Amino acid sequence: MTAQARPRAAVILAAGQGTRMKSPLHKVLHPVGGRTMLDWAIDAAEGLGCEKIVVVVGAQAEAVWRHVEKRLGAGGVAVQDPPLGTGHAVLAAREALAGFPGDVLVNYADGPSLTAADIEPLFGLRAAGAEVAVLGFEAADPSAYGRLILGEGDRLMKIVEAKDASEAERAVKACNSGVLAAPAGRLFELLAQVRNDNAKGEYYLTDVVGLANAAGLSVRAAFAPEEVFQGVNSQAELAAAEAAFQRRRRGELMAAGVTMTAPETVFLAWDTQIAAGAMIEPNVVFAPGVVVEGGAVIRAFSHLEGCIVRAGALIGPYARLRPGADIGEEAHIGNFVEVKKVKVGPGAKANHLSYLGDGSVGAKANIGAGTIFCNYDGFDKFETHIGENAFIGSNSSLVAPVRIGAGAYTGSGSVLTRDVAPNALALERGQQTEKAGWAEQFRARKRAAKGR
Amino acid sequence: MTAQARPRAAVILAAGQGTRMKSPLHKVLHPVGGRTMLDWAIDAAEGLGCEKIVVVVGAQAEAVWRHVEKRLGAGGVAVQDPPLGTGHAVLAAREALAGFPGDVLVNYADGPSLTAADIEPLFGLRAAGAEVAVLGFEAADPSAYGRLILGEGDRLMKIVEAKDASEAERAVKACNSGVLAAPAGRLFELLAQVRNDNAKGEYYLTDVVGLANAAGLSVRAAFAPEEVFQGVNSQAELAAAEAAFQRRRRGELMAAGVTMTAPETVFLAWDTQIAAGAMIEPNVVFAPGVVVEGGAVIRAFSHLEGCIVRAGALIGPYARLRPGADIGEEAHIGNFVEVKKVKVGPGAKANHLSYLGDGSVGAKANIGAGTIFCNYDGFDKFETHIGENAFIGSNSSLVAPVRIGAGAYTGSGSVLTRDVAPNALALERGQQTEKAGWAEQFRARKRAAKGR
Amino acid sequence: MTAQARPRAAVILAAGQGTRMKSPLHKVLHPVGGRTMLDWAIDAAEGLGCEKIVVVVGAQAEAVWRHVEKRLGAGGVAVQDPPLGTGHAVLAAREALAGFPGDVLVNYADGPSLTAADIEPLFGLRAAGAEVAVLGFEAADPSAYGRLILGEGDRLMKIVEAKDASEAERAVKACNSGVLAAPAGRLFELLAQVRNDNAKGEYYLTDVVGLANAAGLSVRAAFAPEEVFQGVNSQAELAAAEAAFQRRRRGELMAAGVTMTAPETVFLAWDTQIAAGAMIEPNVVFAPGVVVEGGAVIRAFSHLEGCIVRAGALIGPYARLRPGADIGEEAHIGNFVEVKKVKVGPGAKANHLSYLGDGSVGAKANIGAGTIFCNYDGFDKFETHIGENAFIGSNSSLVAPVRIGAGAYTGSGSVLTRDVAPNALALERGQQTEKAGWAEQFRARKRAAKGR
Repeated sequence: MTAQARPRAAVILAAGQGTRMKSPLHKVLHPVGGRTMLDWAIDAAEGLGCEKIVVVVGAQAEAVWRHVEKRLGAGGVAVQDPPLGTGHAVLAAREALAGFPGDVLVNYADGPSLTAADIEPLFGLRAAGAEVAVLGFEAADPSAYGRLILGEGDRLMKIVEAKDASEAERAVKACNSGVLAAPAGRLFELLAQVRNDNAKGEYYLTDVVGLANAAGLSVRAAFAPEEVFQGVNSQAELAAAEAAFQRRRRGELMAAGVTMTAPETVFLAWDTQIAAGAMIEPNVVFAPGVVVEGGAVIRAFSHLEGCIVRAGALIGPYARLRPGADIGEEAHIGNFVEVKKVKVGPGAKANHLSYLGDGSVGAKANIGAGTIFCNYDGFDKFETHIGENAFIGSNSSLVAPVRIGAGAYTGSGSVLTRDVAPNALALERGQQTEKAGWAEQFRARKRAAKGR
Repeated sequence: MTAQARPRAAVILAAGQGTRMKSPLHKVLHPVGGRTMLDWAIDAAEGLGCEKIVVVVGAQAEAVWRHVEKRLGAGGVAVQDPPLGTGHAVLAAREALAGFPGDVLVNYADGPSLTAADIEPLFGLRAAGAEVAVLGFEAADPSAYGRLILGEGDRLMKIVEAKDASEAERAVKACNSGVLAAPAGRLFELLAQVRNDNAKGEYYLTDVVGLANAAGLSVRAAFAPEEVFQGVNSQAELAAAEAAFQRRRRGELMAAGVTMTAPETVFLAWDTQIAAGAMIEPNVVFAPGVVVEGGAVIRAFSHLEGCIVRAGALIGPYARLRPGADIGEEAHIGNFVEVKKVKVGPGAKANHLSYLGDGSVGAKANIGAGTIFCNYDGFDKFETHIGENAFIGSNSSLVAPVRIGAGAYTGSGSVLTRDVAPNALALERGQQTEKAGWAEQFRARKRAAKGR
Repeated sequence: MTAQARPRAAVILAAGQGTRMKSPLHKVLHPVGGRTMLDWAIDAAEGLGCEKIVVVVGAQAEAVWRHVEKRLGAGGVAVQDPPLGTGHAVLAAREALAGFPGDVLVNYADGPSLTAADIEPLFGLRAAGAEVAVLGFEAADPSAYGRLILGEGDRLMKIVEAKDASEAERAVKACNSGVLAAPAGRLFELLAQVRNDNAKGEYYLTDVVGLANAAGLSVRAAFAPEEVFQGVNSQAELAAAEAAFQRRRRGELMAAGVTMTAPETVFLAWDTQIAAGAMIEPNVVFAPGVVVEGGAVIRAFSHLEGCIVRAGALIGPYARLRPGADIGEEAHIGNFVEVKKVKVGPGAKANHLSYLGDGSVGAKANIGAGTIFCNYDGFDKFETHIGENAFIGSNSSLVAPVRIGAGAYTGSGSVLTRDVAPNALALERGQQTEKAGWAEQFRARKRAAKGR
């Protein structure tokens, strides 16, 4: 980022209805990489150092309003009511930015691929004297977009809508993204002059370019690659944005030294951290909040969320790590094992069909197949703590709160409700009894009843 | 569909050997979208309103014969023996359609992408006076196909095989799909004139076009997109047809408002129904018979078949819903949980490592981790019924038939063979005993034995 | 393969640093199809009938050195120290091949797609009199490669590096792969003349072509498809090589009659064997060592390694077969079931949430849901053997060593530590007790404590 000569603010437009999504969930609350598109836009603004961020929401969009307020506070929300176009939407933020002494970025909450780095050049143009700075892209097929008509020195003369373009203008590949930056006062001054004498009767943000030029102000354009402007207006476009995110992030992780057998089957979240030398097998899903250290192996069909996997740990296949799982160095979490809010010590193993919820497992402890931490009584959750080198017999039920001492053994199939002393053996089990020939008679009876 | 002036019938050719599949399963019984290709062809005929459908099978294809008979009755099968070409195959259906007063469609059992809507225009041509109506497509690369040589007003003059085509004819992109329609009597009359004086000594259905033109009858062509004629003759082509189905169906569901994080990893069946506002994570498989209501979330690695997931329910990750699972509103079925023939009430939860087979779970009941419905005695299946708000302790074995009353609690690790009264606590458990220092001695003994 | 007039040897260059992999694991030890790239290269040499194979490793690459020694013995390793170019690397093998009377192939340990069949033509050229035989490819975009300048009769006149190529030479699409063959004595004689008077100060293997031509020796080129020379220098290229392997192997299996619903989601190992008529659903991972017989069905989300699945068996969904699992004809292994070192008899079933480790299951035995073979005491593994037609109740713990007789029944939830006689019923279970109204009081107490 360049040195910030002037303070920055952002207006993020999130008032669109998104009716083409056909979803009860508001468009901008749909996730990409496990994070709402709205948050991607706020992240970009924060990444640019914006001191003040105002999200413009529609009057009915209560869920969006609450989402923004939770992140930015009440001052981060401006309501546009009724919706009368993009220019009108930005004006909804005027009061929130009244007297703001710096530059304002206008961006959109449905373009999750556009990053702070893509936008930064706009502020570069501002620093270089442009009064209005517009972000554009070279379109492979520009036919649907407004064209940026450039003059000398990248001066932006005007923006021509696709339908109004002359033949020469239609040949222009430079297109308008709708993202722009200008000094706060200037922006709202220009917006106040925008008129709605068009087919839809809307106030278009884009019109500030013409007004600025008419006023003899310097207007210039910066460019970013077309793909970062992939907007989301339908479920298919949402899936495309997700795919773009995944491709980019997988590529970054591989470039950093992560081995992925089949990267196209690994799903990452916005904040997934995987260190060089980690190995990810096919079909692994990372929900948000995961850190994987070097030398760890995440085997196929694993699902991780809000957890840390330390160096050399072996996870899966079919391991489910939930928030609060902290898997120690060289520890093993195996197939059909779920771990939640449990710190698993170095070298500990829980390899088969277990539920470890709330508590801790000491270093080098061994958790037998089918072990269940009975952590819930219908009202409260309780903790199970297993000491170092303890050996939990298969099919055990550990009724929390309960502590198994270091080095203790527990018998297979036991229900343990009381603490076990270190190095003790604890058992809960009846006598094995046998009825000779019973099964033979049972089968005969059953077969007779079925007449076979 | 247009008004049906005349009754319709269909002859579906399924007599091909399919030897390139190299499979013991007959080609037309291979599935696409969880439904045999043969059934896709019958579905298309039914979708066109065909009153009579005759499937022509080979003499050895007993499995096909039985499959058709099961769906259409004995009258739906005609046997071609020996196989002497497509024209000869259609003639095998002559008796079954004797005296049929309407139009006959000839279609193929190895083209699962061709729908009723694609075929309907043939009947439109018939209604407009064409005596023989042929379905064609514009091929991107027509070199392997017979070309449709068209005259004025889409009149089909002749069909030229690729190897017999002149240079001018080779430039024609309109190709023959082999699908056609004609009045029953006319069709069999023309077929009776087809001769086998060709290299393979076979009777070709296509020859009716030349014979009809020679007789001065009106022959016309309608067109459908090339991709819908993707025939299946090898495992790779089967996989391609499956992929085409999946792409189409995923696109339809997204267009209808279903959110899919990674649509390319979601596998749908021919009859999968998912409502707008449902959310499907990566790697979900829908076998046939699934209905998902709006607001439901199907998390990663879930497998659903023959079940209903009601509004707002949360399924997975790693949930297996089998036929007869009925998951109530806002209910949760979590990781490594299998549900079969169980009605799960609204708000009930079974989140971990359980098998729920045969019975019911009341509203807001909580099923602890590791719970097993012991539903089978080697001969019969029995039911387990759990009342509303009941709390089933972890690692419980519920030996069916058994009823747990509303609001009852059961102790972790219990084997319950008798009914439990509402609001009671039921337990089956021994005394926890402890042998101090046992584990220490055990380890010493083991180490000594291993000499370490 | 052609008749081998002369003995063959191979020098495999594995001394590259692979720093672009950014991985602590040496580049050539990264797997493709579950086998290290180094082993793919050794396999190719063995496939060509090379009697002697020498792998040239870097001085620091201890893991590579040990890997080679384990497979080829100490004589299979030559150390290049310091690294002074490819020619210098081959010279490191001179001593190991001293006096070798036949031809030497020079190949690379980071090109896992190049097979014996691709290389064989080099030896054909040798047999036809060429003194040096070089393997090339026609590059779609040759700009980065050294060009093969050919004369009459495929005589290779010289190799021109990209940066030294004239305009005419830049138009040449024939490129150098670096793979070559020559008589051992000749090769080392020519290499001894290679000089390092170039920008990098390295000794280039390629220079032997010029030297051979200068000495009037016959030098010729053979060609293989460009894609088989896909080298691996980064994690992304490793993933690309893996993808190429998977595509090829999936295609081969489908061509041989294996049905795959979604081949792009099936991951195969280098040695995966699947017979015609087997059916593989989406999302199945085959680690090395798997044999699947005809008629078997591998359902979605299954993971197989080191196991055999016999004819007609049904595996998954979510089945984990580990090394030593031998699943009999028509047997069923269902969801969330792990099998390791267990021979499962014909028609036996273990359909739900079980761990079968070490032992055997007799024909037609039925293993109830939640069954655990308790095979480990923290020091040793013990075996569980279940007789034919036995019925193991759900949620059982079988504490090995233990034998359940043929036809025996065991009660649900039992912990069985002693052998059970054939046709007997064995139980371990306490009395079910009930406290009326307990749950109601419990809830009242809890709610009071929470003040609600």
